Amino acid sequence: MTGKTTWAIPEGYIPEGSTGPEPEMISHETVCILNTTDGDATVELTVYFTDREPAGPYEETVPAGRTKHVRFNDLEDPEEIPTGTPFASVVESDVPVVCQHTRLDSRQAENALLSTIAYPGTGESG
Amino acid sequence: MTGKTTWAIPEGYIPEGSTGPEPEMISHETVCILNTTDGDATVELTVYFTDREPAGPYEETVPAGRTKHVRFNDLEDPEEIPTGTPFASVVESDVPVVCQHTRLDSRQAENALLSTIAYPGTGESG
Amino acid sequence: MTGKTTWAIPEGYIPEGSTGPEPEMISHETVCILNTTDGDATVELTVYFTDREPAGPYEETVPAGRTKHVRFNDLEDPEEIPTGTPFASVVESDVPVVCQHTRLDSRQAENALLSTIAYPGTGESG
Amino acid sequence: MTGKTTWAIPEGYIPEGSTGPEPEMISHETVCILNTTDGDATVELTVYFTDREPAGPYEETVPAGRTKHVRFNDLEDPEEIPTGTPFASVVESDVPVVCQHTRLDSRQAENALLSTIAYPGTGESG
Repeated sequence: MTGKTTWAIPEGYIPEGSTGPEPEMISHETVCILNTTDGDATVELTVYFTDREPAGPYEETVPAGRTKHVRFNDLEDPEEIPTGTPFASVVESDVPVVCQHTRLDSRQAENALLSTIAYPGTGESG
Repeated sequence: MTGKTTWAIPEGYIPEGSTGPEPEMISHETVCILNTTDGDATVELTVYFTDREPAGPYEETVPAGRTKHVRFNDLEDPEEIPTGTPFASVVESDVPVVCQHTRLDSRQAENALLSTIAYPGTGESG
Repeated sequence: MTGKTTWAIPEGYIPEGSTGPEPEMISHETVCILNTTDGDATVELTVYFTDREPAGPYEETVPAGRTKHVRFNDLEDPEEIPTGTPFASVVESDVPVVCQHTRLDSRQAENALLSTIAYPGTGESG
Repeated sequence: MTGKTTWAIPEGYIPEGSTGPEPEMISHETVCILNTTDGDATVELTVYFTDREPAGPYEETVPAGRTKHVRFNDLEDPEEIPTGTPFASVVESDVPVVCQHTRLDSRQAENALLSTIAYPGTGESG
């Protein structure tokens, strides 16, 4: 299994409220990263906004043969992602990985879910 | 990160009603566009219907290093997109971008969400 | 804009009941086909099952510069698609098109939605 | 129609509870596999976790010209997939197939759905 070293997710939004038991039912925006290679992946996330400079990079490690489901809600360094604000993100990894974007929106009593495989770009930066 | 200059979204539908607080809970059909390049993107949207000529082009600008979440509900020039009507859309940009399609359907008390990365075509027109 | 002449949708399921006003809220499984070319598309759908021979082909026409949102619920010739039964489908077109799969599940009071761009295969038959 | 012999699904999660009639409304995580070739497909699923060695392979057969909707909930050999735990999966087949990932989350009274075509990798192992 091979993957790509660059992935884009144009849609991003952390809802401002939640209903249901925490933490599994808290509203969240997630990028799921799968590393099937024999080496650990050092991953950098950059977050893009509508009207300000991008945030990041946020650094994550996904060990060899492991998956990591990163919640944008939990990102803190170098800064938190604001809630209720549209954003987009790019994932760059030093080894090939595969990325999927999922949102659980639990602002209302019943939850809504969305998911899509991210867009596999090429590594040349724009 | 690179993208593509042409994207297609065969599914499109603006529901006719909404529940919940505006504007974040109003039913909407969105194309999220991410421009990671160093130059502003001039983007043209064309909207296709079942039984009439296509509408548009609708022109949007996505600045360098920014994302824009365009709501089909808000398009006005050259004409509004009718609600309750199936449509499809094509995005053409003068620089490579990445596009994702998302719908929030809030006609009923609890919302439904769908999302998918758009189809990255090639720039040759049909 | 170009597309592909062959598309696959491994997931298919027509729920057995609906709630809400017809026809827009009836549970449905849809393939949205976009034809941006200058010529009409003659499209053939083949439906695959778990434990019987495939059904079809079902023939549809998508005119030049138009979209068609085909509901599997409505297919009748050569046979109806059974409800409550897992299936998959392949779309073959004589001109390049783009396909997206969407389901509205309205068995319960609040609806659920899913959508994804179909998988663009190549035209060689299996 | 052709497919690929390797597919990745970075997102995976089996919710811990369900509401509604069984079995069609039980929460489930599914990979739908379509085999349009003339030969049976022998498929191996490997499941990746956050903090332990991968599980599997789980072996499935998808006959020629058939689809199989595999529920991760039902996998037993060599071990069950734990509920309430993030995972990812890779599908490897000896003939080209097409894979789609779908979840029905029925923990609450109204269900949520997500679906996406899986990521078509190449066969070289990492």
